[in-house]
Amino acid sequence: MGNAKSNQIRVAVLGARGRMGVEVCKAVDAAEDLQLVASVDVGDPLSALADAGAQIAVDFTRPDVVMDNVRFCLDHDIAAVVGTSGFDEDRFGTIRGWLQDKPGASVLVAPNFGVGAVLSMHLARQAARFFDSCEVIELHHAGKVDAPSGTAARTASLLAAARAEAGAGPVPDATTQERPGARGTDVDGIRVHSVRMPGLVAHQEVILGTEGEVLTIRHDSMNRASFMPGVLLAVRAVRDRPGLTIGLEPLLGLS
Amino acid sequence: MGNAKSNQIRVAVLGARGRMGVEVCKAVDAAEDLQLVASVDVGDPLSALADAGAQIAVDFTRPDVVMDNVRFCLDHDIAAVVGTSGFDEDRFGTIRGWLQDKPGASVLVAPNFGVGAVLSMHLARQAARFFDSCEVIELHHAGKVDAPSGTAARTASLLAAARAEAGAGPVPDATTQERPGARGTDVDGIRVHSVRMPGLVAHQEVILGTEGEVLTIRHDSMNRASFMPGVLLAVRAVRDRPGLTIGLEPLLGLS
Amino acid sequence: MGNAKSNQIRVAVLGARGRMGVEVCKAVDAAEDLQLVASVDVGDPLSALADAGAQIAVDFTRPDVVMDNVRFCLDHDIAAVVGTSGFDEDRFGTIRGWLQDKPGASVLVAPNFGVGAVLSMHLARQAARFFDSCEVIELHHAGKVDAPSGTAARTASLLAAARAEAGAGPVPDATTQERPGARGTDVDGIRVHSVRMPGLVAHQEVILGTEGEVLTIRHDSMNRASFMPGVLLAVRAVRDRPGLTIGLEPLLGLS
Amino acid sequence: MGNAKSNQIRVAVLGARGRMGVEVCKAVDAAEDLQLVASVDVGDPLSALADAGAQIAVDFTRPDVVMDNVRFCLDHDIAAVVGTSGFDEDRFGTIRGWLQDKPGASVLVAPNFGVGAVLSMHLARQAARFFDSCEVIELHHAGKVDAPSGTAARTASLLAAARAEAGAGPVPDATTQERPGARGTDVDGIRVHSVRMPGLVAHQEVILGTEGEVLTIRHDSMNRASFMPGVLLAVRAVRDRPGLTIGLEPLLGLS
Repeated sequence: MGNAKSNQIRVAVLGARGRMGVEVCKAVDAAEDLQLVASVDVGDPLSALADAGAQIAVDFTRPDVVMDNVRFCLDHDIAAVVGTSGFDEDRFGTIRGWLQDKPGASVLVAPNFGVGAVLSMHLARQAARFFDSCEVIELHHAGKVDAPSGTAARTASLLAAARAEAGAGPVPDATTQERPGARGTDVDGIRVHSVRMPGLVAHQEVILGTEGEVLTIRHDSMNRASFMPGVLLAVRAVRDRPGLTIGLEPLLGLS
Repeated sequence: MGNAKSNQIRVAVLGARGRMGVEVCKAVDAAEDLQLVASVDVGDPLSALADAGAQIAVDFTRPDVVMDNVRFCLDHDIAAVVGTSGFDEDRFGTIRGWLQDKPGASVLVAPNFGVGAVLSMHLARQAARFFDSCEVIELHHAGKVDAPSGTAARTASLLAAARAEAGAGPVPDATTQERPGARGTDVDGIRVHSVRMPGLVAHQEVILGTEGEVLTIRHDSMNRASFMPGVLLAVRAVRDRPGLTIGLEPLLGLS
Repeated sequence: MGNAKSNQIRVAVLGARGRMGVEVCKAVDAAEDLQLVASVDVGDPLSALADAGAQIAVDFTRPDVVMDNVRFCLDHDIAAVVGTSGFDEDRFGTIRGWLQDKPGASVLVAPNFGVGAVLSMHLARQAARFFDSCEVIELHHAGKVDAPSGTAARTASLLAAARAEAGAGPVPDATTQERPGARGTDVDGIRVHSVRMPGLVAHQEVILGTEGEVLTIRHDSMNRASFMPGVLLAVRAVRDRPGLTIGLEPLLGLS
Repeated sequence: MGNAKSNQIRVAVLGARGRMGVEVCKAVDAAEDLQLVASVDVGDPLSALADAGAQIAVDFTRPDVVMDNVRFCLDHDIAAVVGTSGFDEDRFGTIRGWLQDKPGASVLVAPNFGVGAVLSMHLARQAARFFDSCEVIELHHAGKVDAPSGTAARTASLLAAARAEAGAGPVPDATTQERPGARGTDVDGIRVHSVRMPGLVAHQEVILGTEGEVLTIRHDSMNRASFMPGVLLAVRAVRDRPGLTIGLEPLLGLS
C-alpha cells in the first residue's frame, strides 16, 4: 500500500481477494491520488474499514453480504462504490430509505464498470427507435455460469424500453417451427443469445435492422483490467453525488 | 424460353412459380448451353416433362410431393436435381432402392445450392478438430418460419461428427443458471443460435475456440441469385454421376 | 405518376434516369402524400419543374450541374432536397448568400440519406472521446470508382473533430516499416481503409479502441432502397426548415 | 528448470529474454516430456547449448543473428525450431545447402506458430478459387512496427498463388479516384489493409466475394500464449522430419 499523503483519497476494498477485488487493489495502489487503506475479504471484520479511516469502500463481494456492507458504510460515513451483482428495485428502495436519514451520504451501484460496455448500451438505446427490430448476442469464455450475462439482459431491457417510448410494437418474427431454444431467450420481448467458448473473453453485439439495412454495435472486452478506469472514475466522483447513483452513465456525461 | 439448339441440355423446372423456381427458370433461360423446355407447378400434369423431352428436371417443390416427382423422373429417364427440403435417411434409402433397377439413372439432392455456404461447411468441418469448442449462429430475414435453418442444423451435425472422429469429448460449458433458451438449441451437442431481423438476408457464422484464439467462418448470402451458380453446376454435372449424389460437395471437388 | 390530390406535395426529380433518381421516382410515386409531377434528366429543360408546379425538387444529378439546379429552384420558389455529391464550404457559402434574399426558401443538402448510416456517424462521434484511437473501414461492391467513400471520409472528419474538441492528441501508431498504402489513407489524422469486392453492397465499420477494450459500430446497407426513407423524410420536412440545412441529422432529432 | 528425467527431450531457448522467448521457456518448463536445459540471450555464448546437451533449440532471436544460430545447431547435432522473422528463398537455399552434408539433421522454420492462424491461411487458400475476388484485413495493437503483418503478406501471396493455379485473372476493381493508400497495399495483386489500435491483440480477416455472396475467415489471437501449442508441437515433431521443414502445416496434417 502506497505512502499516505494528505491529499490522497483513503480507499478500502471489500472482496479484496476475489478476481475483481485483486484488480481493484492493484489499480487503487497504482493511482497517485488514491491510497489503499484496507483490504477486506471473507473472515475479516468490517470494523477494519472504520479503523483504517476509509473514506470510500469499493465492494465486489456477493449478493448475500453486500447489503450489510452498504449499511455498515452508511453508518460509518464511508461512501460506497458497489460492483456486486444481485440488485433489484427492492434493494434500491431499501438503500434509498437508509439514505433519507443521511443527506450527505453517497452510494453508487453499477452493474458494469466497463466504459465501453456502458457506452455501447447508451448508443444502442438511442438507435433502437430507428429500426424495426433488434436482438442481442453476447459471447463469453466457457467458465461463465450464468446465461445471459447481466449486461446483455440489461441491454435488452433498455432496448425494449426505448422501443416502447417510441411507440414501437413487438418485433417482427415469423417463426412457427422452432427447435427449443433456437431463438434465444426473451427479455422484455427482445431476443438474447449466449455463446460460451474457450478463447473468448467478454463480447456483446446489439444488432438492429430495418428493411435494407442493419446496424451492429459490438463491444469487445479483452481482459479484466478494462474495468478499472470505470472503477477509479466512480471512486473519484462518488462523494460529489449525494444519494443513490445507479450505473456509470451519469459520470460519463451520458444521461 | 430460348430457341432449341441441338447441343443444349433440355431442362424442366418443377415448382416453377415458387420463389426459387422463378430464379431457376431465369437462370436456365439465360444459360447458353441449357434450354428450358417445361415449367411445371401445382396443378400442371407431370406428363408435361416427358412430353417436352426434358433430360433433366430441377425440383424446388414441397416435401409432400417431391418423392412422387423423383419417381416420375426415374420412370421417364429424366435426371433429377432436387433442392426441396424434407429429406432424411429413409427417403435416401427409398431412392437408392429405386436406383438399383436403373443403373444409368442420376438423382442429386442438395440441401443447399449456395457454393459459399457449402464451402463454409466444408471448411468448418476441417477446422473442428483443432479447437476445444464450436457453436453456430445463423441470421436470417424476419420472414423465415423455421429456426434453426436447415443449413445451420446440418453444419452443427457435421461439426459434431468431425469432433467425434477426432476423439473430442463434449464441448466445455459451465452454465448452471440459464434463462430458458439463452444458450440456443442443441444439435448433436453443438449449440445453434437463430437471429431473425428485417434487413438481413441469409448469414451464418461458425465460431471455433481454444484458449487464446478464436476462428470464425462467416458466410453472407445477399440474394437468391447467389444460389443459381450451384444449381446450374448441378444441372451440368448430374448426368455424369449415376446413382444418388447428396450435396454439392463432390461437384466442387470438396469431398 | 399517381393521380393528383389537393393535399399531396408536388415533387419533381432531377437526375430521374440515374440509379438513385429511378428509385426516388418510384418511392415518391408510391407515397400517398406525395405526387411526382416532373421527371427531369440530361437534355430536359429545367423549366419543366416550374411548368409542372413543383413545390419540391429532389436532385441526384452531377457536381457540375447541381449548383445551377439549386439556383433555378430558388428563383422559382421550389424547395430543394439535394443528394448530389461535390459540396464543400465554398458551395455552402454560395447557397447561403442566395438564401439571404429569399427568407422563406429552403435547401437541404445531405451527403447520405441512409438513416442507419447517418445514425452510425452520430454514434461514432459520441464515442470518439472515450477511446484512445479510432479507424474506419468501408467496404463496397467492386464497381465503385472512388476510394474512400464520401461517407467514410466524412465519418473520419467527424471523429477527428470530436477528438479535437475533447482535447485528444494524435492517435497512437508505432508503424515504422510500412509497405505503401498498408495503413490506409489519412483523413484529418484518422486512417480510412477501402475494400472493394463483388458480393458486397455498402458497409462501414468504425473501430474504436483503448487498452483492454474495443467498440465497433458497423452499418450494412443491403440495397439502394434503404436510402428512400431518408429521402422521403427530407421531402416532407424541408419546407418547414427555411434556410440551408446540411445533413439528415437535424430531421432525425440527432443534433 | 524441471528435474531431468531420462525420457525428457532436452530443449534450449535462444532469445530467452525476449517476449516470445519468455513464453517458450515457461511452456517448455511446464511440459512433462520436455526439459529446459539452457536459456540463452544476447551476450551469452552459444556454446552453452552444446555444454547443456541440448537436443533441440528453439530460436526467437533477430534476423541478423538467426543464421549463425542455425549453423551452430547443425554443427553440434542440435535440431532447430525457428520462429525468428526475416527468412526468404535465399536463406532457405543456404540452409538446404548446409543440410546436404547432414542427412539426419532437422531444421523447422515457421513464420507463425499459431495453429488457428496457420489453419485460417490453409482454409483461405482452398476457398480462393471459388470467388471472383479477395482481400485481407489485419488488425493489431498500436505498438506493432511493421505493416502489413508477415502473416497477412503471406496469406495474400497464398491467395494469389491459389488464384493463379485456378486460372483466375486479376481481381475486379473499378477504382479511378483514390486518395493515397485508401485501397491498401498490393501484395501479388491482392489488397492488404492494416489497422493499428490499442485494445486489439492480433486479428486477421480474409474476405472473399462473388456476386451475391461473401465468405469471411477471421482469426482472433487473444494473447501470446496462443502460440505455445504450435511451438511445442514443432519441438516434439522436428526430429522426425529430417531436412528443412517450412511452416507448421505439415505437422498439422494440412499439406
